[in-house]
Amino acid sequence: MSRFGHLISIDDLSKDEILYILKKAESFEPFAKGMDKSRILENRLLANLFFEPSTRTRMSFEAAMKGLGGDVINMTAQEASSVAKGETLADTVRVVSRYVNAIVIRHPLEGTARFAAENSDVPVINAGDGAGQHPTQTLLDLYTINKESSLKNIKIALMGDLKYSRTVHSLIKALTLFNPRIYLVSPDSLRLPEEFLEGIDGDISFASLGEIIDEINVLYMTRIQKERFPDEEEYRRVAGSYKIDVNSLKNAREDLIIMHPLPRVDEIHHSVDGTPHAKYFQQAFYGVPVRMAILSEMIE
Amino acid sequence: MSRFGHLISIDDLSKDEILYILKKAESFEPFAKGMDKSRILENRLLANLFFEPSTRTRMSFEAAMKGLGGDVINMTAQEASSVAKGETLADTVRVVSRYVNAIVIRHPLEGTARFAAENSDVPVINAGDGAGQHPTQTLLDLYTINKESSLKNIKIALMGDLKYSRTVHSLIKALTLFNPRIYLVSPDSLRLPEEFLEGIDGDISFASLGEIIDEINVLYMTRIQKERFPDEEEYRRVAGSYKIDVNSLKNAREDLIIMHPLPRVDEIHHSVDGTPHAKYFQQAFYGVPVRMAILSEMIE
Amino acid sequence: MSRFGHLISIDDLSKDEILYILKKAESFEPFAKGMDKSRILENRLLANLFFEPSTRTRMSFEAAMKGLGGDVINMTAQEASSVAKGETLADTVRVVSRYVNAIVIRHPLEGTARFAAENSDVPVINAGDGAGQHPTQTLLDLYTINKESSLKNIKIALMGDLKYSRTVHSLIKALTLFNPRIYLVSPDSLRLPEEFLEGIDGDISFASLGEIIDEINVLYMTRIQKERFPDEEEYRRVAGSYKIDVNSLKNAREDLIIMHPLPRVDEIHHSVDGTPHAKYFQQAFYGVPVRMAILSEMIE
Repeated sequence: MSRFGHLISIDDLSKDEILYILKKAESFEPFAKGMDKSRILENRLLANLFFEPSTRTRMSFEAAMKGLGGDVINMTAQEASSVAKGETLADTVRVVSRYVNAIVIRHPLEGTARFAAENSDVPVINAGDGAGQHPTQTLLDLYTINKESSLKNIKIALMGDLKYSRTVHSLIKALTLFNPRIYLVSPDSLRLPEEFLEGIDGDISFASLGEIIDEINVLYMTRIQKERFPDEEEYRRVAGSYKIDVNSLKNAREDLIIMHPLPRVDEIHHSVDGTPHAKYFQQAFYGVPVRMAILSEMIE
Repeated sequence: MSRFGHLISIDDLSKDEILYILKKAESFEPFAKGMDKSRILENRLLANLFFEPSTRTRMSFEAAMKGLGGDVINMTAQEASSVAKGETLADTVRVVSRYVNAIVIRHPLEGTARFAAENSDVPVINAGDGAGQHPTQTLLDLYTINKESSLKNIKIALMGDLKYSRTVHSLIKALTLFNPRIYLVSPDSLRLPEEFLEGIDGDISFASLGEIIDEINVLYMTRIQKERFPDEEEYRRVAGSYKIDVNSLKNAREDLIIMHPLPRVDEIHHSVDGTPHAKYFQQAFYGVPVRMAILSEMIE
Repeated sequence: MSRFGHLISIDDLSKDEILYILKKAESFEPFAKGMDKSRILENRLLANLFFEPSTRTRMSFEAAMKGLGGDVINMTAQEASSVAKGETLADTVRVVSRYVNAIVIRHPLEGTARFAAENSDVPVINAGDGAGQHPTQTLLDLYTINKESSLKNIKIALMGDLKYSRTVHSLIKALTLFNPRIYLVSPDSLRLPEEFLEGIDGDISFASLGEIIDEINVLYMTRIQKERFPDEEEYRRVAGSYKIDVNSLKNAREDLIIMHPLPRVDEIHHSVDGTPHAKYFQQAFYGVPVRMAILSEMIE
């Protein structure tokens, strides 16, 4: 990531740059939630252009920016819909980029973030564009693994919807920089598309959770969405096999961590929340220091 | 109120704690509207989780937090509705409480604030949950009485909808700590429910406004909502008798103050606004120093 | 503009006052986008009461206020609609004006801003009220002309919808303080109403763009809205003649500047964006220092 460039895809970053951000994020942890005071982004403004709602992502960018003494201008849903109707996105970005020092954009359409970057005077951060990328999510996932487990010699199972989950696709790509052992645990109809397996030279294979639960360090869960299935009965039959509760973890390693990008529906039973394995809320928190690191690096 | 506890109900506070907050609020008045500068909550973040709109309450919390140098993250209506659809409230609170130093929540369903508190890492303030509690409203009501009249030997009439008004129920409970003389002025169909009279050992009785207008120090008005009546004619007939104008105040004490939690519809005629009795806008303002006192006390 | 007065109409300002604001805005340019740090409005609060969405105007007021170290409370769309339903605007303004140090209001109904000012304890700035005024837009238009061209001996063409464009009406009035040469370029059905010509003693005449393109210093474009026409074919025929592209500018003066209040639809072809004539995005940016000047002047 060049100091004043954009952050559109995790592929924009080298392994060294990723490790640099993770290290920097660590140093920002005391500033998250105001445990320590920082004003390094004082008088700097961030625009949140969210064309679809995303409570966690928007709020953690806002918390990160404000935690560094900066400030945030949020586009309202009503304003977003009038952009959708009247003006081109390009013009909106051209104008807003003249008001602020950086833009975070989320949009239902793949490719929007890169298009916005082409029309912006200031750094653009992709906060998710449809089936496209969401690089700050990948960075906070890597940060969580690094902090709560280890990126070295990681044995990770990705479980649930591996076909449509943008989060999983980006994470796999980034993990391959660290020689992982990856297990793919999903229903047949939601298998990882072949294209994501090509060019990955890590150690990757299909498995069931029972086969590998005593071996893995990280279990990364995702939601299985009802909308992916032709009928509700099929959904219930399939999704039911990709849920976990405390019983699923009987044979787990003591140091297994469980992650989830959230929101969850019912794929992680609440009985798991109280176990030392559960790291998904901590993972959400890590979004703040990771985004602090990114913002501090990108904003002049 | 324990320094790092939650504020869910006015019943959580002892008389001493209430008086302490009122005193502290007084000291914050110069900071409201920036008449004096304070940064005691610098680098502290408050999340406003409003699941129903409330302009006055949300804005005065935001003004209070910012007036102390802190900052606020508002959940948008669009985000609130996607919480309603997808994620459990418990998970939302678990995540948001990791981004901020305190949470203000308003929700149409009674009991939500306490449930949120059980899932939060940080102090939760109830800003109204349905028919439940709205303790900061009660505190600003008490502050207004204390400031513009006196809590000692108070003679107060509560007028209008005494059946459904959450504000009135909480205020009565809190007032009984101060040996008040309370008059209840309402249509039969909107009388105070018996349960609120039980356990109150103050001096409380039903009356008409005419009977007691020359005696009372405080007239606390509330809205009578059309929706409470079977038909509009019945509403108009009843509501018409519970409105005031300058003529209703001919025999009032010179030092009578009139309060209203706002918004009003037409129960207080605009001719009253210019009289020295009218304190309802001042009362709204007092929400800022009172909430400053509460935030400064609750946020670490 | 009296230091603590309201800003409702450009007519409220004398020529000297306008020039004073333009000069002051110049001094604030380094503070826009945080190029220089200012905290002159620290602990001051602005309320944005937008009863209709306006991304550019709202965001640039927010950027201006925050760029001076102040803070902003935005009314949400949901809150605005509950004001529309329940409470009178007068009461809302009375309450909000007790929370903040100034109010910016935008409303679809002409006259609303002045009415709000009458009920406010703090300065009110009109950010557009229907067919009424939008004085900060006029000030930023004048600032752009002054900065990128010159207000002295200006030869300006106003092109497009001159009948309904509030922006154009206000700009003409303000320009006449500077002895301009004004050309009106519009379809017959969208001509400037006679009332705006009366009392203007400047040099003003109707023209086609081709006749005057080699003479003018400023081309001020506006949108022609489909809704103004009985059918779409008529719209397309008329609007088509009031668009520009690089070919329209072949005979233009080298120092011609093109302005537009934005959003544009297709009246300025994208091929124009890259020419040195195009100043409409810069014009949008100038909204920030101009509003900084106004806020710093009006807020105590």
